[in-house]
Amino acid sequence: MTMIWLNGEFLPADRPAILANDRGFTLGDGLFETIAVKAGVALRMEAHCRRLREGADFLGLPVPLDDQGLTDAVMGIVGANGLHDAAVRLTLTAGPAARGLPRPASLSPTLLLTVGTLPGELPPARLIIARRTYRNEKSPFSRLKVTSYLDGIIARNEALALGADDALLLNGNGHVAEATASNFFALIEGQWVTPPVADGALPGTMRASLLRSWNAVERSLLPADLDRATEMMLTTALGIRPVAGLIG
Amino acid sequence: MTMIWLNGEFLPADRPAILANDRGFTLGDGLFETIAVKAGVALRMEAHCRRLREGADFLGLPVPLDDQGLTDAVMGIVGANGLHDAAVRLTLTAGPAARGLPRPASLSPTLLLTVGTLPGELPPARLIIARRTYRNEKSPFSRLKVTSYLDGIIARNEALALGADDALLLNGNGHVAEATASNFFALIEGQWVTPPVADGALPGTMRASLLRSWNAVERSLLPADLDRATEMMLTTALGIRPVAGLIG
Repeated sequence: MTMIWLNGEFLPADRPAILANDRGFTLGDGLFETIAVKAGVALRMEAHCRRLREGADFLGLPVPLDDQGLTDAVMGIVGANGLHDAAVRLTLTAGPAARGLPRPASLSPTLLLTVGTLPGELPPARLIIARRTYRNEKSPFSRLKVTSYLDGIIARNEALALGADDALLLNGNGHVAEATASNFFALIEGQWVTPPVADGALPGTMRASLLRSWNAVERSLLPADLDRATEMMLTTALGIRPVAGLIG
Repeated sequence: MTMIWLNGEFLPADRPAILANDRGFTLGDGLFETIAVKAGVALRMEAHCRRLREGADFLGLPVPLDDQGLTDAVMGIVGANGLHDAAVRLTLTAGPAARGLPRPASLSPTLLLTVGTLPGELPPARLIIARRTYRNEKSPFSRLKVTSYLDGIIARNEALALGADDALLLNGNGHVAEATASNFFALIEGQWVTPPVADGALPGTMRASLLRSWNAVERSLLPADLDRATEMMLTTALGIRPVAGLIG
């Protein structure tokens, strides 16, 4: 039976765990991280903890554990499910509260960890440029991994409906920001390029790692610039997926 | 004991009801309505049903009940709690699913109804203009009552921290869009004015009703225009709150 970790307790995944008045459910008042665990090691955990704390600071949410405690919880839920490799999702919300926007004076945040399988090798992704929505680079939340993913959801639906695998989201200036749930890299004239955070790219943990290891640069990209790309990649904390090309 | 209504069942509100993998919780893949019930009558129910269906159509979510069924559920949860007057929140999400943005082929949407008390008479609201975030009138979701309320949450926090009661959110052009969880009306030269939906105002059910009964007009408003307002009001489905003025 799959187990989840909720505020320090291990519980079965198939039974309700969240109160109906949890602000993560009612108002999207939350953040998350998705962490790759391989051979019993949580990858880039320090970067995940740092981003979680930056987001929690901005939202005014307390993080109930220190970094070691978060790491122990990640390894705990992986172990409780008898796994060595897993995708662990860590969700932090403002917890249960009465109706209304103001948070209660005494907050009981919800910290939830769930496990999934790491994605296997995927075929190169065929992309579209999303038309139904865009990435708002002016929102403070474009820099935080908040639980509100509707832009990504409808853009992904748009891609699937057109026979593609994923969509690139443009920002308000028409620059490429990222894909629906991954960062984007293009190899242009021998140089790896990725959109800057100021263009609406989420500051991904894998992105930060590849900026160093690929000697990549942050530069604004128009869709037309991708005609000159000799390789393109989608990157998440869980891995790297090559891009076959843009369709349509 | 307070009861909730979940997918046709009455359950106690103090026990977990939502699965940890509900997309409303994990991805903000949901919509809601807040309905005033007074003396056993659900007010403006037709408008709430219409807006819910418009949002569900846009998101591609099925609504599991017809309008009569939704009304019966609203009255059912009010009655189950022994109430005649209540604020009923109706939340529709894409339901439980495995990790990832694509919805499962066979969707089991979550329909949840909860009750709260109607707000009493509140003192006139002191407002600020939110600086930490803004209302993105270009997002398709500014027209839908999606569960993602982070802009409103941090703007309300900003207001409370400054000793105000609520905040007006400007849009990307610097026009007034709405308050953090209510529409905004100003009486200017004897004419009630409210920001158009194109400026980022949620198409509120009370707003629609007041546009008719107050003979109000939709017009873009700059903060400076409010200097000429002789009265201002915040309006929600639950009621109307006068504005004392802007501070700071």
